[in-house]
Amino acid sequence: MKVTVIGIGLIGGSMALTLKEQGFAEHVIGVDTNPDHIAKALELGLVDEIMPLEQAVDASDLVILAVPVNIAEQLLPVILDRVQKHVLMDVGSTKEGVINLIAQHQKRGRFVASHPMWGTEYSGPSAAISGAFTDKAAVICNQDDSDPDALALVEKLYETLGMHLLYMNAKDHDVHVAYVSHISHITSFALANTVLEKEKEEDAIFELASGGFESTVRLAKSNPAMWVPIFMQNKENILDVLNEHIAQLRKFKSCLEKENYAYLEELIGNANGIKRILK
Amino acid sequence: MKVTVIGIGLIGGSMALTLKEQGFAEHVIGVDTNPDHIAKALELGLVDEIMPLEQAVDASDLVILAVPVNIAEQLLPVILDRVQKHVLMDVGSTKEGVINLIAQHQKRGRFVASHPMWGTEYSGPSAAISGAFTDKAAVICNQDDSDPDALALVEKLYETLGMHLLYMNAKDHDVHVAYVSHISHITSFALANTVLEKEKEEDAIFELASGGFESTVRLAKSNPAMWVPIFMQNKENILDVLNEHIAQLRKFKSCLEKENYAYLEELIGNANGIKRILK
Repeated sequence: MKVTVIGIGLIGGSMALTLKEQGFAEHVIGVDTNPDHIAKALELGLVDEIMPLEQAVDASDLVILAVPVNIAEQLLPVILDRVQKHVLMDVGSTKEGVINLIAQHQKRGRFVASHPMWGTEYSGPSAAISGAFTDKAAVICNQDDSDPDALALVEKLYETLGMHLLYMNAKDHDVHVAYVSHISHITSFALANTVLEKEKEEDAIFELASGGFESTVRLAKSNPAMWVPIFMQNKENILDVLNEHIAQLRKFKSCLEKENYAYLEELIGNANGIKRILK
Repeated sequence: MKVTVIGIGLIGGSMALTLKEQGFAEHVIGVDTNPDHIAKALELGLVDEIMPLEQAVDASDLVILAVPVNIAEQLLPVILDRVQKHVLMDVGSTKEGVINLIAQHQKRGRFVASHPMWGTEYSGPSAAISGAFTDKAAVICNQDDSDPDALALVEKLYETLGMHLLYMNAKDHDVHVAYVSHISHITSFALANTVLEKEKEEDAIFELASGGFESTVRLAKSNPAMWVPIFMQNKENILDVLNEHIAQLRKFKSCLEKENYAYLEELIGNANGIKRILK
């Protein structure tokens, strides 16, 4: 099968690598606007050749749209206009906007909206990893709006990547990822800024940073070109979670201010409930 | 050398294990009030024998106090009263309270206040790990108040554990750890509570949790018996950091509410500055 990957970064590159290794893709065509990324993707063997967007779509059976979600919204209608029997899928972290955008498109059935739940704080083709998606979840949204053969192909792709599939509507997906992904990035960015602000006064502060700090702050390395559009598109859900999170932080603040350590212990005991989820 | 470890948990147990393996400690005596922890520590070979506190102190050259910081404050004066030529060290996450408490004690010089910058979200002797401290930083506070031979022994201990040493006064230490350790735990606890609150309505939410979520929330598994006393003792510093962190989160909130995405990008770009610190 000929596969085009539009956006040869962390996600697109990692997919290309694994799909080639698994024999799912015999030939991978890359599309990218960044000359450095193109050179690196060819050097690393993530893609077999580079083509302009239109030619690449025409030459392939499956098109994977792996660009930031704002660019995905620009490209999706253009690509759908060009699609015949092709299957087109995206991998973005927000789903409702993109789905609403092409809901009435006559080729809607050729599109499968999906979101593989894997990523790192790094970006670009150098960050691509073979086997990255193994044992993670992939979400397919509004699957009834996709043609059965298109859906089946995308399901086979995710199984080839070693992922287990979840199905949900785009609206629920966007609420859930606000809780289990987007807010983690905002807290990490804000924590980095809190500590960097203090560092201006105190050089020595990071000599003490240990594993716990690194764990909660590493997402703050994430690329704004990817995350600003996600926050824009999922603004309402993220604001709900952010308000709740600030309210939860204020409970800790109030416990300290009032020296209410019994309630502090209760708050921490409740947070320990996360052990049910994270083994 | 005979070493007594009071509190055979994550830190005390990991120290005992490595100090025995490295030949620093020929014999390790354990002191603990928890019968399950005693049985487990003996079973895992973390300690050679168990004794009551007074006997253990009398029988050893070096005493490591590795209990929660509130218990450390109770035990420290009691042990110092009993000390002759022994060296006594603590390993707690707050330093000013404990140092002020015994500042005028006639045996003050036998005590070395220290803080090895390593830990995990797990606790108890089963969580102990050999070689855990390698390449991490250990802080020694107010070193001029310790006798030279006591200081030298504790320095040798941390070098045996493979740690590099930092020296600072207790006040600075407590400010720094509020930024690079304590606030990370509060944000993690609060994030866990934020998401667990939502989970009451939405069963499926955690099926989507990926590595980023786990990274920012794993500290929420941490033991309240250890952390409530730390938050109590470092209350003022933590409140300063928590207020700053809530202010930073409000900036993200304001960007979303006002759709000021240029400033949002600036905030994230600034947070990316953490790359200078975390490689």
